[in-house]
Amino acid sequence: MEYEFVTHFAPLAGIFALLFVGLFTWWVIKQEAGTPRMREVASWVQQGANAFLRREFRTIAYFIVGLAILLLIVMWPKWQIAFGFVCGALLSMLAITIGMNVATRANVRTAQAARTLPGKALTIAFRGGAVMGLSIVAFNLLGISLLAIFFGVRPHDPENVSLLVGFGFGASLASLFAQLGGGIYTKAADVGADLVGKVEMGIPEDDPRNAAVIADLVGDNVGDCAGRGADLFESGSDNLVATMIMGLAFMNPIGDFPGYGFNAVLFPLLSRSIGAIGAVLGVLAVRGTRKRSPITSLNLGFFTTGIFSVLAFFALAKWVMHDIRLFWCLTLGLAAALVSALIVQYYTGSNAKPVQEIAKAATSGPGVNIITGMAYGFESAVIPAVFIALVNVAAYLIMGGGVLGFFGIAAATLGITEMKGIIMAGDAFGPIADNAGGIAEMSGISEEVGASADVLDAAGNITKAITKGYSMSCALMTSVVILFTYITEMSRHLGQPLTDVVYHAKFALVNPVNITAIMIGSTIPFLFSAQAIHAVGRTAYKVVDEVRRQFREIPGLLEGKANADYTQCVDIATRDALKGMIAPTLWGVVFPVAMGFIFGAWPLAAYLIGVKIIGATLAMFMFNSGGAWDNAKKFIEDGHLGGKGSDAHKSAVIGDTVGDPLKDAAGPSLHILIKMQNILSITLLPLFLEHSLHIVG
Amino acid sequence: MEYEFVTHFAPLAGIFALLFVGLFTWWVIKQEAGTPRMREVASWVQQGANAFLRREFRTIAYFIVGLAILLLIVMWPKWQIAFGFVCGALLSMLAITIGMNVATRANVRTAQAARTLPGKALTIAFRGGAVMGLSIVAFNLLGISLLAIFFGVRPHDPENVSLLVGFGFGASLASLFAQLGGGIYTKAADVGADLVGKVEMGIPEDDPRNAAVIADLVGDNVGDCAGRGADLFESGSDNLVATMIMGLAFMNPIGDFPGYGFNAVLFPLLSRSIGAIGAVLGVLAVRGTRKRSPITSLNLGFFTTGIFSVLAFFALAKWVMHDIRLFWCLTLGLAAALVSALIVQYYTGSNAKPVQEIAKAATSGPGVNIITGMAYGFESAVIPAVFIALVNVAAYLIMGGGVLGFFGIAAATLGITEMKGIIMAGDAFGPIADNAGGIAEMSGISEEVGASADVLDAAGNITKAITKGYSMSCALMTSVVILFTYITEMSRHLGQPLTDVVYHAKFALVNPVNITAIMIGSTIPFLFSAQAIHAVGRTAYKVVDEVRRQFREIPGLLEGKANADYTQCVDIATRDALKGMIAPTLWGVVFPVAMGFIFGAWPLAAYLIGVKIIGATLAMFMFNSGGAWDNAKKFIEDGHLGGKGSDAHKSAVIGDTVGDPLKDAAGPSLHILIKMQNILSITLLPLFLEHSLHIVG
Repeated sequence: MEYEFVTHFAPLAGIFALLFVGLFTWWVIKQEAGTPRMREVASWVQQGANAFLRREFRTIAYFIVGLAILLLIVMWPKWQIAFGFVCGALLSMLAITIGMNVATRANVRTAQAARTLPGKALTIAFRGGAVMGLSIVAFNLLGISLLAIFFGVRPHDPENVSLLVGFGFGASLASLFAQLGGGIYTKAADVGADLVGKVEMGIPEDDPRNAAVIADLVGDNVGDCAGRGADLFESGSDNLVATMIMGLAFMNPIGDFPGYGFNAVLFPLLSRSIGAIGAVLGVLAVRGTRKRSPITSLNLGFFTTGIFSVLAFFALAKWVMHDIRLFWCLTLGLAAALVSALIVQYYTGSNAKPVQEIAKAATSGPGVNIITGMAYGFESAVIPAVFIALVNVAAYLIMGGGVLGFFGIAAATLGITEMKGIIMAGDAFGPIADNAGGIAEMSGISEEVGASADVLDAAGNITKAITKGYSMSCALMTSVVILFTYITEMSRHLGQPLTDVVYHAKFALVNPVNITAIMIGSTIPFLFSAQAIHAVGRTAYKVVDEVRRQFREIPGLLEGKANADYTQCVDIATRDALKGMIAPTLWGVVFPVAMGFIFGAWPLAAYLIGVKIIGATLAMFMFNSGGAWDNAKKFIEDGHLGGKGSDAHKSAVIGDTVGDPLKDAAGPSLHILIKMQNILSITLLPLFLEHSLHIVG
Repeated sequence: MEYEFVTHFAPLAGIFALLFVGLFTWWVIKQEAGTPRMREVASWVQQGANAFLRREFRTIAYFIVGLAILLLIVMWPKWQIAFGFVCGALLSMLAITIGMNVATRANVRTAQAARTLPGKALTIAFRGGAVMGLSIVAFNLLGISLLAIFFGVRPHDPENVSLLVGFGFGASLASLFAQLGGGIYTKAADVGADLVGKVEMGIPEDDPRNAAVIADLVGDNVGDCAGRGADLFESGSDNLVATMIMGLAFMNPIGDFPGYGFNAVLFPLLSRSIGAIGAVLGVLAVRGTRKRSPITSLNLGFFTTGIFSVLAFFALAKWVMHDIRLFWCLTLGLAAALVSALIVQYYTGSNAKPVQEIAKAATSGPGVNIITGMAYGFESAVIPAVFIALVNVAAYLIMGGGVLGFFGIAAATLGITEMKGIIMAGDAFGPIADNAGGIAEMSGISEEVGASADVLDAAGNITKAITKGYSMSCALMTSVVILFTYITEMSRHLGQPLTDVVYHAKFALVNPVNITAIMIGSTIPFLFSAQAIHAVGRTAYKVVDEVRRQFREIPGLLEGKANADYTQCVDIATRDALKGMIAPTLWGVVFPVAMGFIFGAWPLAAYLIGVKIIGATLAMFMFNSGGAWDNAKKFIEDGHLGGKGSDAHKSAVIGDTVGDPLKDAAGPSLHILIKMQNILSITLLPLFLEHSLHIVG
């Protein structure tokens, strides 16, 4: 593989994806946007969402500028790290801005199509979501490959690839803010709207009299859509950057292994290029028709991407890397993505035992409902984590064990992240369909769209569940790979062979200092989750207060004779979400830095393992219990066990309220936290190696 | 220190403690037992509790016999392991039988004294609890020291001390069954009684018309009293056994360190003997008077034990071990016990922010109440875990780092477990006071005992919180020490110097196989908790059904004209608790064995670290969130935020129901699980080293 080839191939694949971003945007926008009322409602949502992103980005900007200056100073003369940091953060924000803007236009057009052409509604929602999916992949590829060229990464001078770490950190930090801010926003608005609207006033969901209803619809966009987009942009960047840097360690021979040469560094870019092309093909394959169920259409897209990827992986492994074992590792990763999605579906799907048992427990009251959900949530963390652990071991064994196993695990991770584009398209489809339903309700056309909106909504719930299972596996595998990159970077900085570092006495698992560091690391996800949940709770109170105030003070509101003031709730949610996202993020930055300086670079790795392992299992618990409570509530609303308004339903609504901040605010942010701490540690590794206080370790 | 001295000293200290067990038993029994009705109610509780223990022991016996035979075969010719295993299990059961039997006699006598001599009520309840505390300490010491003598452990032939590991495993297994069975029993009965009694029927707690009320009172004894006793017996045994075995590695010189000689093996026995004497002195110092508040009386006891211990530690370190650093380690552990208790009090005490915020959140409904409790629960795991981590590092640094740090951490652990006797006395005091209140209510004398029962109950809640914070710290530190013993045993079995084993390549923290093993280990506490919570839920349903049935089918029951059939609920709870305790325990045994055979002895250590770290943090979350919900409910019941019967109270009751299985069934059992897996791994270590399949690792 020639260096020139990849300097062209990866950016070209990025441009190819970007082309389709433009194409789908154009196609979505030219669709009909419905009645004047629909346009009005949609414009409120759009304005609210854009206003939030603008204010969020302004807040983030302070941190970005501050940290960039700090990085510039402490890493001097490596200015590229600070530069990459800014690029990573900006591209993350750009990708989600584009994606969310199209999503807030696709929603009303989906609602309109649902009135007239149900088959087309699916295509609009999916292509609207695809803009997010493809922007992410495109900006990942373009940003990283162009930076690599700009930094002068060349076959005979490859070391500058390690400067890309700044890009990863920038992407992580911006994304952590975006996911956390969006997550707090969406859940505070959702819980606030439901508590007063559904529970106290007994008015339907998305009723225009509810002052928090627009905030709720905005929340779907800034949380579920932009937030999740940020998450996937981040794991894509970190993954790519980390595996490329790790490649440095596998260019030259290690023992019997002859070395991959510069291809070791290019491999991740090529595999991700395959992902970009595969995602475009997959999106093109999804077309709603009157005959096909939405799920069949979506599956068609997933399979197209999958089959293309497997074929391309084979070519990549055989003819570029000349190591067919990498094909098995990549494919193993791809298969792992599928299996993770299936496991999550068992634990959160309405037709499996857990959700039905949780719904049944709701008939004995909210306490038993919540207990049962927690028990299944705990259980649900077991199989995925063991499964991912075994995938790691399998990839390690495929490569024959030893340090080469690192590269095998990296390849498996590239395989799993490969599906990112199409999965994200499916995920963004969910909030678009959800919004379409809300806009229809607000515009008084909900009866016209009735059945077709429900079908889309059900499909959206499935894709959301798939994304969660998928992103959990991605996060766990990626964080393992970034840790390995941390180790290969240690070996490079110390000038010691990789094997010597891996098996160094300071990396002794049973060294009390390392056990201590694992223990400290294991507390971080608890601290972080506590803060995220508190922020949701606090913001939700204020939204509740405001909605209650409007019902009390605006005469005629409950009778539908006066209009609610939607901007107040949007304002409250925006302000408080932005406030709430700062403290957890800062703790996330401060802890690894403190560990690195106080304990040194070696125990820091142990700390990171603690963070990762608790973070991942805790996130699974949160995702799955939250999803299961939600679906148990839906199961009852579908007319089972007494249906809407029954005591069981009330208990299930309480369970759902408990699950909301877990599954949509704390859980997904944990994913980013894990990776951000790893990539930050790699960024500052040279400092830790030189300037640690060495108080212990 | 002469060998002959300790062959006498440790058993003598055990006999000294046993003497006071007899003395306090005699003293408690000779107190007045009250009216015929009180005696009748008390005899029901006593019969129910004894029947449960009998049936529980029968169930456990099958496993003990089966496993003893298995151990005999696989460990042959080391018959001592199977023999010790049986002794450990039997002594655990004996200690809690004695303790619980006296507790079920002290309850009615406390109620009677509360009518007449409030000051004496405290003394009776505390001495009744002290029988449990002292039995545990006595049987720990006697069992282990006599077995050591019997196994021929001698200064010039010390290696047989490693055979004591069977005792630890026996104690762990029996205790895990007892804690889990008792925990499921007590919470199922409690939740069942409350759900129908308080919530559906609106009758007071402990009302004689409630068919589950006797089961509930029995539950206090078999769960809170016998269960917690089993927990502390177990951690005491494991700790003693593990540190004695670890001593083998520190008899001879390592580098600059000259070696402690045979004293290294005796040190734990001596320190525990100090604990036994200290506990007796502490109990004698607790005397209720009319003037002193119960808390002052209890504190007097704790301080007496503490001060005696510090002085004796100094003597032990200076004149026996000739290493004053050990004094600092021991005292550090003692101080850690205190600090842990304080932290738990902050998170679960009614006068601190968390409980008050949770109570306030209850005014916005059960969902927000639960969310807030979870957030504080997550947060509450942070400081104790970081604190214990730092205690470990401090002990490690006191000893100058390196492998000698292992011994320092062991000493700190001996310091923390030192307080066991007096802490357990305080803990068993809680259910006795609780039972006294229940018996008073059932016997219609509740107005007579009113104020003095409340004061005792409040004191009991504080001691319970102290015990929880304490036992968490004990469990975490002990499990670290047992892991180190596992390592020292590896070095002995492999015939390699300890330093070589600790820093062996196979113990590389960043070896993918070890990371995988940590990941798998981290899922076990989730699986275990899920099963324990499910068991409580299932049993509670059945109790609810039975109580409802009796109200429906027994004419005149609600009007108080007919008697409820208490034996049915006792039977249901007994049967189901015994059924529910089996599966989680078996998984707990099977997993480490499977890991040992499939992955081998090295990654098994990584697995154990994963189990320990998640297990401890998860248990803290469960304890503290459960405790905080409980106290938030009590805070409202005390008349705040609307008081009893308000909406906030209903929400708080739901929160309490959620917390119950977490704090009293799953949480405490996790402690034992952690240690049992460690000690089992040491027991089977020779097999893993020789016969592992070496599929990986």
